[in-house]
Amino acid sequence: MTRQELIQQIFEKKTFLCVGLDTDIKKIPEHLLKEEDPIFAFNKAIIDATAPYCIAYKPNLAFYESMGVKGWISFEKTITYLNENYPKHFIIADAKRGDIGNTSAMYARTFFKEMNIDSLTVAPYMGEDSVTPFLQYEGKWVILLALTSNKGSHDFQLTADSEGERLFEKVLRKSQEWGNADNMMYVVGATQGKMFEDIRKIAPDHFLLVPGVGAQGGSLEDVCQYGMTKDCGLIVNSSRAIIYADKTEKFAEVAGEEAKKVAEQMKEILENAQK
Amino acid sequence: MTRQELIQQIFEKKTFLCVGLDTDIKKIPEHLLKEEDPIFAFNKAIIDATAPYCIAYKPNLAFYESMGVKGWISFEKTITYLNENYPKHFIIADAKRGDIGNTSAMYARTFFKEMNIDSLTVAPYMGEDSVTPFLQYEGKWVILLALTSNKGSHDFQLTADSEGERLFEKVLRKSQEWGNADNMMYVVGATQGKMFEDIRKIAPDHFLLVPGVGAQGGSLEDVCQYGMTKDCGLIVNSSRAIIYADKTEKFAEVAGEEAKKVAEQMKEILENAQK
Repeated sequence: MTRQELIQQIFEKKTFLCVGLDTDIKKIPEHLLKEEDPIFAFNKAIIDATAPYCIAYKPNLAFYESMGVKGWISFEKTITYLNENYPKHFIIADAKRGDIGNTSAMYARTFFKEMNIDSLTVAPYMGEDSVTPFLQYEGKWVILLALTSNKGSHDFQLTADSEGERLFEKVLRKSQEWGNADNMMYVVGATQGKMFEDIRKIAPDHFLLVPGVGAQGGSLEDVCQYGMTKDCGLIVNSSRAIIYADKTEKFAEVAGEEAKKVAEQMKEILENAQK
Repeated sequence: MTRQELIQQIFEKKTFLCVGLDTDIKKIPEHLLKEEDPIFAFNKAIIDATAPYCIAYKPNLAFYESMGVKGWISFEKTITYLNENYPKHFIIADAKRGDIGNTSAMYARTFFKEMNIDSLTVAPYMGEDSVTPFLQYEGKWVILLALTSNKGSHDFQLTADSEGERLFEKVLRKSQEWGNADNMMYVVGATQGKMFEDIRKIAPDHFLLVPGVGAQGGSLEDVCQYGMTKDCGLIVNSSRAIIYADKTEKFAEVAGEEAKKVAEQMKEILENAQK
């Protein structure tokens, strides 16, 4: 999906919500466990119920890998289902990969070419040649970890060099030598509040993928106040607060209602921003 | 596997070689393609031929994931084969994972508990809570990326803070607040040469996993001169130079011979070090 197509989706649907498919067999409604593939059955129902209110889906690979071969089957079925039924939704594989060049190239081929996923989260620690293989596919995106939502983000990401540049700032600046706002986004945690201002000084146009709203305590208002651009520039993810809002047979319906609530907030924010 | 057991293996067998199972369907001998599971057939033959000359195996997950569900099946079969037939060999899942706490915890359970793998490579960018979930399993290890073998390692890992501490040094120092030499190792690329001296100043006792000897151009002599400790302290990985040394029906035999050559060098180095 191109940047223009993404922006169009956001403004047509008036939402920049991403639903995180962090599907955990221990947390899904019990009645699904009798299904042949409970994880896929859950995802399918959640997707059908939330699709009108979001523009992206983000399965976190860890949840699928933790189930071994079965998990990979559920993951692949979910991606195929999205590609076939919701081709206008942006798909993010939250994989946090990053390896030496030839290995990153293999990951890129798998996720982008074979599975037709739009984007992949990538960890920057190994530098340029771990990232650039992901930038070789037209319409595909690298989403580079910059400033994450967790407590440990303070351990290394905020370390300033001798000229005062913090590591996440160096990642933002340096990576713009490798890609641009048409093929690269950054992960910035919703818990980072005013730091979005600092991010926008270095990356004024890039889309930011923002996890951490909801269960992790980030505020949608703060994120938008400091991070939104004229093109929106934000994809805000919510996982647990939507997909596990209810554990009965009505789980999908309730997830849809929760997604709708967030989308309504987003609509208001987008409309106010355009005034 | 405990540190003591690992050291015992190294000194009994007089080798600290790790064979990297970077198995690529495009590079394995053609006659294997008619097997039901060519990747596993290749791995099994390579393992049987090289086991006397190494103390560890390191499958790189990217190579398996790139084949989707089939790849995961080959990976799981390889791990089961190692656990059942070579329980004294140290198994490294080269996965370079690292995510927020609850997600890292899922990875830890998968790799350590369900698959009984000894260790996992982890990327440090997200900090403490992305690493500590992997340290909760007795006899299991985190192998944290410190200074990698690739060109891009210069982009961020060498950046010095205002007090002159470089990022890889901060990773080494800070992570010792989370774990110790009994449950944590570091990845240091063989191409880093004299930098091993700097590493040893901060991590004098930790084992180092050293990729980059062979195809990537690192020197075994340099690594040992600057990085070896009284307990050896090194696991040196070779992948392509061993497993793809020959592409005929004799591939496994030739791989065994290549592994033997490296092991003989290692034996000499270990014996000289003890004089």
